[in-house]
Amino acid sequence: MSIHPTPFQPFRLELPGWITEYLVQQPETYPTPEARMELVTRLAQLNIEYGTGGPFGAGVFRLDTQQLVGPGVNLVLSSKSSIAHAEIVAIMMAQQAVRSHDLGAIGLPSHELVTSCEPCGMCLGAISWSGIRQVVCGARGSDAEAVGFDEGPKPVNWVTELEQRGITVTLDIGRTNASSVLQQYVQNGGEVYNGRQG
Amino acid sequence: MSIHPTPFQPFRLELPGWITEYLVQQPETYPTPEARMELVTRLAQLNIEYGTGGPFGAGVFRLDTQQLVGPGVNLVLSSKSSIAHAEIVAIMMAQQAVRSHDLGAIGLPSHELVTSCEPCGMCLGAISWSGIRQVVCGARGSDAEAVGFDEGPKPVNWVTELEQRGITVTLDIGRTNASSVLQQYVQNGGEVYNGRQG
Repeated sequence: MSIHPTPFQPFRLELPGWITEYLVQQPETYPTPEARMELVTRLAQLNIEYGTGGPFGAGVFRLDTQQLVGPGVNLVLSSKSSIAHAEIVAIMMAQQAVRSHDLGAIGLPSHELVTSCEPCGMCLGAISWSGIRQVVCGARGSDAEAVGFDEGPKPVNWVTELEQRGITVTLDIGRTNASSVLQQYVQNGGEVYNGRQG
Repeated sequence: MSIHPTPFQPFRLELPGWITEYLVQQPETYPTPEARMELVTRLAQLNIEYGTGGPFGAGVFRLDTQQLVGPGVNLVLSSKSSIAHAEIVAIMMAQQAVRSHDLGAIGLPSHELVTSCEPCGMCLGAISWSGIRQVVCGARGSDAEAVGFDEGPKPVNWVTELEQRGITVTLDIGRTNASSVLQQYVQNGGEVYNGRQG
């Protein structure tokens, strides 16, 4: 028997300060998938420019008011947490905002996740548990792979897997723009921080 | 243009108080996979008894000293976050403890994730990004499905997917015990909180 040397501290994940500063200058509503994608792709790009993480942005929007309820950018390096992909951060923020683990709970409006890049295996699973009803993707997984990112373990038929769970998927909204942010990151020497390959 | 009504608060995830109280009374090292599984299965059971979450426990251990560096239990309902599966919590805690998003980084000892139940699709992806080198599972996914939990979108060949990334997988350590905790949860009326089925 012994006292463990370090108690386990709470996990804390904070959005970079520039996100709030940027968002307060933006429209309050985002009426189209294209407008929502433009926002999250801009977040991805600003995340590179401010040096706060990888080239991925996401947002959870409520579909009745078309407002952003949970922004997310990739914070893996800055938060020292491999969990902190943009989609995960957006889901965390949105569920915290609505005070429910289920964004599809009775009494809540429907929610959409917009992500600048197709989800990896982890984020795909996270979407299936989140209560999100619609997913909109910009760049393809193959665009991320083309610059060196890994998609992780993920079913080939991932769109069907979500649709079988009542979650609609729309691909290739603003793909060119979202994909160019991935390329910009790597061209500027950004770290590609996949899991170790063994 | 308008000021958004609510700024986005930091996400905070705290382990239930009973975990530290319990762990300080336990041995400082866990020399075998069976001993490590016994601990995480006990955490799963205590999580039910204290009413702090679902019937899943996990832990990240460093393999040189055989110490627990990140405990985890399912905190989905209590934290109002669908991300808070036991494996995710354990990885968050361990990466925070070692101050790296990569538990396999140069200069760190190898780390093992022990989980009372085979990972779902989200946790499978999370494992692949975490830098963990070994995974040890208790109950099978089919045991969780038998009491109503969904595994989420997950490749059928998930063990191969991890092994291709240099992560070894050991199944069925303490399966009977871990599986009985799942049954106990459901028999006692515990909520099965899958994602909405559409």
